[in-house]
Amino acid sequence: MEHIYFSKQKNKLILLDQRYLPLKEEWFECSDTKDVVYALQEMVVRGAPAIGVSAAYGCVLAAMEVQSINDWQKALNIKTRQIAESRPTAANLAWAVKAMTDAIKDKYFASSLEMADFWLEQALEIHAQDIRINKIMGGYGADLLNDGDTVMTHCNAGALATGGYGTALGVVRAAVEQGKKIRVIANETRPFLQGARLTAYELVRDGIDVVVACDNACAHLMQKGLVDKVIVGADRIAANGDVANKIGTYGVALAADRHGIPFYVAAPFSTFDREVLSGDLIPIENRTPDEVRFINNVSILPQGVEVYNFAFDITPAELITGIITEKGILKKPFERSIAENR
Amino acid sequence: MEHIYFSKQKNKLILLDQRYLPLKEEWFECSDTKDVVYALQEMVVRGAPAIGVSAAYGCVLAAMEVQSINDWQKALNIKTRQIAESRPTAANLAWAVKAMTDAIKDKYFASSLEMADFWLEQALEIHAQDIRINKIMGGYGADLLNDGDTVMTHCNAGALATGGYGTALGVVRAAVEQGKKIRVIANETRPFLQGARLTAYELVRDGIDVVVACDNACAHLMQKGLVDKVIVGADRIAANGDVANKIGTYGVALAADRHGIPFYVAAPFSTFDREVLSGDLIPIENRTPDEVRFINNVSILPQGVEVYNFAFDITPAELITGIITEKGILKKPFERSIAENR
Repeated sequence: MEHIYFSKQKNKLILLDQRYLPLKEEWFECSDTKDVVYALQEMVVRGAPAIGVSAAYGCVLAAMEVQSINDWQKALNIKTRQIAESRPTAANLAWAVKAMTDAIKDKYFASSLEMADFWLEQALEIHAQDIRINKIMGGYGADLLNDGDTVMTHCNAGALATGGYGTALGVVRAAVEQGKKIRVIANETRPFLQGARLTAYELVRDGIDVVVACDNACAHLMQKGLVDKVIVGADRIAANGDVANKIGTYGVALAADRHGIPFYVAAPFSTFDREVLSGDLIPIENRTPDEVRFINNVSILPQGVEVYNFAFDITPAELITGIITEKGILKKPFERSIAENR
Repeated sequence: MEHIYFSKQKNKLILLDQRYLPLKEEWFECSDTKDVVYALQEMVVRGAPAIGVSAAYGCVLAAMEVQSINDWQKALNIKTRQIAESRPTAANLAWAVKAMTDAIKDKYFASSLEMADFWLEQALEIHAQDIRINKIMGGYGADLLNDGDTVMTHCNAGALATGGYGTALGVVRAAVEQGKKIRVIANETRPFLQGARLTAYELVRDGIDVVVACDNACAHLMQKGLVDKVIVGADRIAANGDVANKIGTYGVALAADRHGIPFYVAAPFSTFDREVLSGDLIPIENRTPDEVRFINNVSILPQGVEVYNFAFDITPAELITGIITEKGILKKPFERSIAENR
């Protein structure tokens, strides 16, 4: 699914606007850094790997934008930092911007436009690599699924959250490609409803069996024996294997643990942050209360009521059965398996 | 809060329509059994004790309705059974209809209207008793709360779920009346949003501090140390202490257990069903997918996607710290404490 692409004709980053799916398929055009930061912060595009890919293209726009500035290197530095800092939790964001800046180390460019050309190739490669990696992860992960399994997933860790194939849903796709019949339970994922809107949307498109339930149903669905495995994505993974992912993931992991259901995280190495030793040190984004308060522009709350809207939570490593990566399935103790695979 | 009352002038049961709160304060008028069944099934009124009180008044309307029928006792029997069977999970529904029919055993009525007069007195007493019992429970429960506590609650177990004071929120109200400062975290409670719409509404009205969060945030809020106690209501309690309550309660209990947070259930004895030995035998209502699919009349899902909409779940007795009743706090082993208090 091509939902992120760079138009050379328009010199724009073009994103399928995830705020309006599945009702409308609208495209959001980014002309400059400001647009990219807006698209990331307002979740026109979301999902850690997709954020990384978009940020890489964003750097290209930043380089184009500074062309008429005298000290363009300094101006560019400020702009790429704005992109890197637009959201706090996803590791792939800083990773992608660093990958872009690392690529130009020891290289000379006569102008920012020349650098932009070079960076566009880099961004395209980061994008292509993300899809390749997802498919490799999918292959490893698919071996964990049996024909007939029902997989619960939380949020959207699919094509729309990545360069175009998916981490958690990539595993499902690969299993289906192996000929296995897989059913997905998509938790709706309030407040942004990524599960109901996005996971259901892309699985329906692919003809994969999907059923949606409210987030608060997850423990009961396990209680009823309706869930064989859980697979989720990740926004950042600490050195000890603690996982920051969409708010609610931790609750799903607790319920899976209670019912003896394997709980897998699927994430590329760009999601690992080895400098963060444990999950409690990962910054958790606190978003606007209005995301909870308004649904389809109608308030569900009495006026003036306070709201908590933490966007992520931390699932402790001990609740995780395995982490599906492009180098295979990492097992406990994660400190060691993460350290050994870099 | 008077949200259920019988108008003698109109011969109607009048209900504050909970489907439209907090946006609109509309009143729904029930003229006959059909209206009452509709109001219960469509959740014009909901909450186990409020369902019981409404059903009692509904029996009065049923008795009025059969006045011109020759074999009115038989016709009435059919109508009261329709009320009792309108929803499957809440124990208070069958309890209230049984209390009404028990009250006329060995009594002679010349007409159904004579019986309706007698029943109206019974229904008013069931209603008044519910409020009295809630206040007694509130007194017992309030002693469990410390000044400054933050109490998480799920769904609405407040004035709107009862005759007018509340079970879980009755405990909070009683603690506040004791002069304690209590903060409530209301889980929004998808799909009907009882927490966001109803719990927040009535606490704001009473000037009690309330903050709303999405259901999937509950484990993270505990992880952050923001929750001191959990108090929820119940729809049916089995003989072994397993509790059927609004979908999501079980997940909250699992998270509370993990974080060592006391988890209390507040419910009158009319919610206990001693004939049901354990929670897995309690029927769980499976409601229309449209409740999940549409929010404010807009679909959040791609067309044709299947939905799970189980309305309740079962919290195993072992996860419950205590059950707050009108006879005091029941402790483990619940088999014994429930059997001893009848």
